[in-house]
Amino acid sequence: MGYPETAEGFMIEDPKKWSTFKKQEFKLKPFEDHDIDIAIDACGVCGSDVHTITGGWGETPLPICVGHEVVGRAIKVGKAVKDIKVGDRVGVGAQIGADLTCDNCKADQENYCPNAIDTYGAPYPDGTISQGGYSSHMRAHEYFTFKIPENIPTELAAPMLCAGLTVYSPLVRLGCGPGKKVAIVGVGGLGHFAILWASALGAEVTVISHSEHKKEDALKMGAKEFVLNDKEDWAKPYAFKFDFILNTADMTHEFKLADYFSTIKVMGKFHNVGMPDHPIQLMLQDFASNGCYIGTSHIGNRPEMIAMFELASKQNIKSWVETIDISEEGCKEAVERVKDNKVKYRFTLTGFDKVFGKRSEKA
Amino acid sequence: MGYPETAEGFMIEDPKKWSTFKKQEFKLKPFEDHDIDIAIDACGVCGSDVHTITGGWGETPLPICVGHEVVGRAIKVGKAVKDIKVGDRVGVGAQIGADLTCDNCKADQENYCPNAIDTYGAPYPDGTISQGGYSSHMRAHEYFTFKIPENIPTELAAPMLCAGLTVYSPLVRLGCGPGKKVAIVGVGGLGHFAILWASALGAEVTVISHSEHKKEDALKMGAKEFVLNDKEDWAKPYAFKFDFILNTADMTHEFKLADYFSTIKVMGKFHNVGMPDHPIQLMLQDFASNGCYIGTSHIGNRPEMIAMFELASKQNIKSWVETIDISEEGCKEAVERVKDNKVKYRFTLTGFDKVFGKRSEKA
Repeated sequence: MGYPETAEGFMIEDPKKWSTFKKQEFKLKPFEDHDIDIAIDACGVCGSDVHTITGGWGETPLPICVGHEVVGRAIKVGKAVKDIKVGDRVGVGAQIGADLTCDNCKADQENYCPNAIDTYGAPYPDGTISQGGYSSHMRAHEYFTFKIPENIPTELAAPMLCAGLTVYSPLVRLGCGPGKKVAIVGVGGLGHFAILWASALGAEVTVISHSEHKKEDALKMGAKEFVLNDKEDWAKPYAFKFDFILNTADMTHEFKLADYFSTIKVMGKFHNVGMPDHPIQLMLQDFASNGCYIGTSHIGNRPEMIAMFELASKQNIKSWVETIDISEEGCKEAVERVKDNKVKYRFTLTGFDKVFGKRSEKA
Repeated sequence: MGYPETAEGFMIEDPKKWSTFKKQEFKLKPFEDHDIDIAIDACGVCGSDVHTITGGWGETPLPICVGHEVVGRAIKVGKAVKDIKVGDRVGVGAQIGADLTCDNCKADQENYCPNAIDTYGAPYPDGTISQGGYSSHMRAHEYFTFKIPENIPTELAAPMLCAGLTVYSPLVRLGCGPGKKVAIVGVGGLGHFAILWASALGAEVTVISHSEHKKEDALKMGAKEFVLNDKEDWAKPYAFKFDFILNTADMTHEFKLADYFSTIKVMGKFHNVGMPDHPIQLMLQDFASNGCYIGTSHIGNRPEMIAMFELASKQNIKSWVETIDISEEGCKEAVERVKDNKVKYRFTLTGFDKVFGKRSEKA
């Protein structure tokens, strides 16, 4: 076999050996008129990848090829595709399908489509399991394929496609902009984008973190203030201060949430984008001192993805990225260091030509 | 002693004997220029009273006189009071004080004032503990004292002052009105007001309950549909249906919240007004299928109280109320039946003249 029927990727066979990648072939979904085939040149390494391969978010079809921050070249374009042509540099994020006909899709809420298809580990209608971007090729519907602006380098664009959008979408939906006081909890892969975007959007950004050594970076990214929350009464000076909090940490089940809530304005939101493997526990009374809310969003929609890339392009915003060449060892190192939070602040796997060859259309 | 230094009330001395009321004297706060003294004629029996006297919400100063749905006659009016004169029929709800100078107060969010004073069990600045309305007299700041419209009978007005406002406020803040689909969970003291108000405000109301015998009442109150949630897959037909849910139950810690969340539109809210004695537990992932939020509000503000009474007066809305004469036995029966959910749908203690005499200004 081989492309265009199959692709090759670095796959995990067993969550117990969650960092043991093996290069294997997998089946691509049947090519349809709205599809684009992409020869992958870079793929970001996302916290979701780690939650998935370790089984932290539950069972996943095995073997699995993860990776949903994909940038590459369009090498084949279906006849119904409108805006993308062979040779374009394009990206795919964490969502690769939706029915595009339901009420949510019609309201630009395709990220909440009940028939949404995740970029990896999800069944297509024909039964093919979607596989991610630690691989040679991706076949993607045009609606979930995005042109990358020229001035954003491939390895910096990749992590924007999931991590970037995941924080960009709630920021804009919560009204981030001039005159707003926004707190970002956590300075990791998601947090660093949250600080970059929130500052670029014009808000006054406060970073809340328990890692003092991240202060310098947080300020460089655009934060105005850095709050170290390692003391019992850290929240006291910030009562009712923030329009909302965007929590990017994924250890939220260990938080004393009432402290965070106390810093939010009346009816403001404690919005989460990190997803712990464990439940959170709280008293409904914890919300009652300011009528605040807690919730979570799931990535973002197409218009937000496009707006995010425009913002990054216009303001020349640079993701903070380390690159690693893709290989069994490279994937291993990347996911282990992401799990241990030892990355500043995002990995992009690169060097795909070295293991997968140049790749161009053959079919 | 006696009025105006003290009042008499039916008080609880020990949470272990939470339904053993004793008639006792308690001290009133010093009378100030903005205060109004009220000879109480009726007091609603609120779930909060039960949570307080049983110790379910934590420690409370003892002995305690509960009751924060108070209606009576103004018998003395401070010289700075503007809108209320001796003889007016007035009400007091669950809040009796605030600094009225902080940012929250200035933004009509006095119910979230950090210096708010609860109607019972809270210290005034001079150290006096506020005591509630199972009593002869209440001394209240004019800002927290409300004229009762003429066409609302005293015993029907009383429960509006806490239960009514507690659901009216979030309903209007969440945009309840024509064209909105609103779900109300629970048909109890709070729930019955939620159905009455939401219907009166013009929304399409769906009631979610596990008690089939409440269906007839719910429809009479104005619900369009009654959903019995006693089956595993009750939520399926309602995916993404409701603009928001107002949960009036206080057993939320036993709910499978993900089912409820699934029925809310994208970014809608699961709003709580019942406050369980126990923590809720949930996965942040439970919010991710529609980006919804959970939160809680605390009573409401003065403009909302006034608007609620106007709505009730204009549309001639009747609280569903049973009355019980106030006495040691009457208070006992009322709180025990509220705890056991054996009331349709709210108690008002009446007959205050019989135990406290006529009461008029003496000082």
